[in-house]
Amino acid sequence: MKKIKVAIVGYGNLGKSLEELLLNDKRFDLKCVFSRRDIKAKVFTYPMSKIKNFKNKIDLLFLCGGSKSDIENQAEELVNDFNFIDCFDNHNHIKNYISNLEEKAKCTKHTCVCCCGWDPGLFSMMRLLFNSIEGNCFTFWGKGVSQGHSQAIRNIKGVEDAIQYTLPNKEIVKQIKNGVKPNVNTKDLHHRQCFVVANGNKNLIKETIIKMPDYFEGYKTTVKFIDGEQMKSHKKLYHGGEVLTLNDTMNFKLKLESNPVFTAKVMKAYAIALNNLYESGEYGAYSILDIAPKYLTNSDYIAYI
Amino acid sequence: MKKIKVAIVGYGNLGKSLEELLLNDKRFDLKCVFSRRDIKAKVFTYPMSKIKNFKNKIDLLFLCGGSKSDIENQAEELVNDFNFIDCFDNHNHIKNYISNLEEKAKCTKHTCVCCCGWDPGLFSMMRLLFNSIEGNCFTFWGKGVSQGHSQAIRNIKGVEDAIQYTLPNKEIVKQIKNGVKPNVNTKDLHHRQCFVVANGNKNLIKETIIKMPDYFEGYKTTVKFIDGEQMKSHKKLYHGGEVLTLNDTMNFKLKLESNPVFTAKVMKAYAIALNNLYESGEYGAYSILDIAPKYLTNSDYIAYI
Repeated sequence: MKKIKVAIVGYGNLGKSLEELLLNDKRFDLKCVFSRRDIKAKVFTYPMSKIKNFKNKIDLLFLCGGSKSDIENQAEELVNDFNFIDCFDNHNHIKNYISNLEEKAKCTKHTCVCCCGWDPGLFSMMRLLFNSIEGNCFTFWGKGVSQGHSQAIRNIKGVEDAIQYTLPNKEIVKQIKNGVKPNVNTKDLHHRQCFVVANGNKNLIKETIIKMPDYFEGYKTTVKFIDGEQMKSHKKLYHGGEVLTLNDTMNFKLKLESNPVFTAKVMKAYAIALNNLYESGEYGAYSILDIAPKYLTNSDYIAYI
Repeated sequence: MKKIKVAIVGYGNLGKSLEELLLNDKRFDLKCVFSRRDIKAKVFTYPMSKIKNFKNKIDLLFLCGGSKSDIENQAEELVNDFNFIDCFDNHNHIKNYISNLEEKAKCTKHTCVCCCGWDPGLFSMMRLLFNSIEGNCFTFWGKGVSQGHSQAIRNIKGVEDAIQYTLPNKEIVKQIKNGVKPNVNTKDLHHRQCFVVANGNKNLIKETIIKMPDYFEGYKTTVKFIDGEQMKSHKKLYHGGEVLTLNDTMNFKLKLESNPVFTAKVMKAYAIALNNLYESGEYGAYSILDIAPKYLTNSDYIAYI
């Protein structure tokens, strides 16, 4: 079988996890990493400004930048020349993001898989599936580190480093498993715990975090300022969560040692789907909900039935 | 929105569960039940022999017969005149069943959704998904009543009634959750427990059960003969199971009070998908793996992302 020629855009935790996974998967040929920073990767690295030179030399790109600032702008440009897969996770922008991209991808005859991680991604699929079958479906995240929320804090002026833990409201989880529908606001289902290393105005930073739309506004959020030394104990990127229905009739649970490694695994799996869609002439912007599971494999999928 | 005109074929536990669910779902208009037996349903009932008269009057049929004897033969005939959904569960026959039907359905411009319950069905999807992302995926069923296996026993000459409980090997489940890959035969993962009311040769019946290919052959199977009075305590059709990967990284679990009611819910959900596929001119025989999740809803599925 012909290997899929791929490249990584962005070399943070997710990009590094993908590099490791792709180098160990014979179906892929990892050509290079693109970054705006001066990085040392295991494969060739090029500045983002050179990416256009790789048109027709790469089958698909893995976009690994942050949703808050990078992906939307990058995607709009890159769809002219490349297929790509991303894990864009800014929930409130997803609809516009996909519909804009859909139009452009159809036009330029490219295939994009968007919002492809575990949430959005696998959890999105479970929500649709569970609601269609049972109804009364709930999602809980954590306890774990949200990379998207941590990055959003790091993007604030005066923040040196930050980590955000998402915690489920355990009482409410228990209530649902006992068959009682909770009578609360969605944002009461979780608590957001932030640890921040700052060199700027702490009050202003705290205010900016707590009022950040989409990410923190409306949630019970605690912000604790710590020093760089203390931050070292917060480097384990574990996460998890569950999607469930009343009485726990249907339950999908993830227990992740490393959030970026697992997200990278989901993206790698759906990169196979992207390639299969593209080779079938299916152009456009796809979410996981738009993709029949069979596209995930090149072997005889009937064996899984 | 136009209601989907549907009918039920076969009026056992599954057919009765579907009748109840469909009468309470405004998206469907349940026209009638077809049966070979003389039955009393909540809607009009007709003998199977009259079904051809309903061509063009029914949007889709729910096939609720047994996999061992009914569905394969019925499907081959019905695909000439109808769309239908079934939960055919004879694993070793699935490939042939779907490929035969695929050809005929494309020819007669019908849409069929096959093998659509929780296993085969939801569990099939999870196996493909989990294997594509994490690898090392395992399926456990029970403790619970397998309708397919119970029916297969009931079809044996001399059997008045029967129930089959599937039990997971708890030690092996624990081992997998602790990250240890089990080194056993697939058929060692479960135990099959049968309770049978018989009026025929018990030794012959026991022999026939234990050696039945696809269903019991190779499994640790116990057969206990009981009387009709004792069978009354075995009428709760609970079931469940889980698909999981090593270390319990990914886990999909079902805890079902009633197996036929839940199977009926899955079929009802995918009947919406069938209708959406058919209206888009997508003819053929589909398993759950061939269907993008978006088809499950007529509302804006982006909301689930």
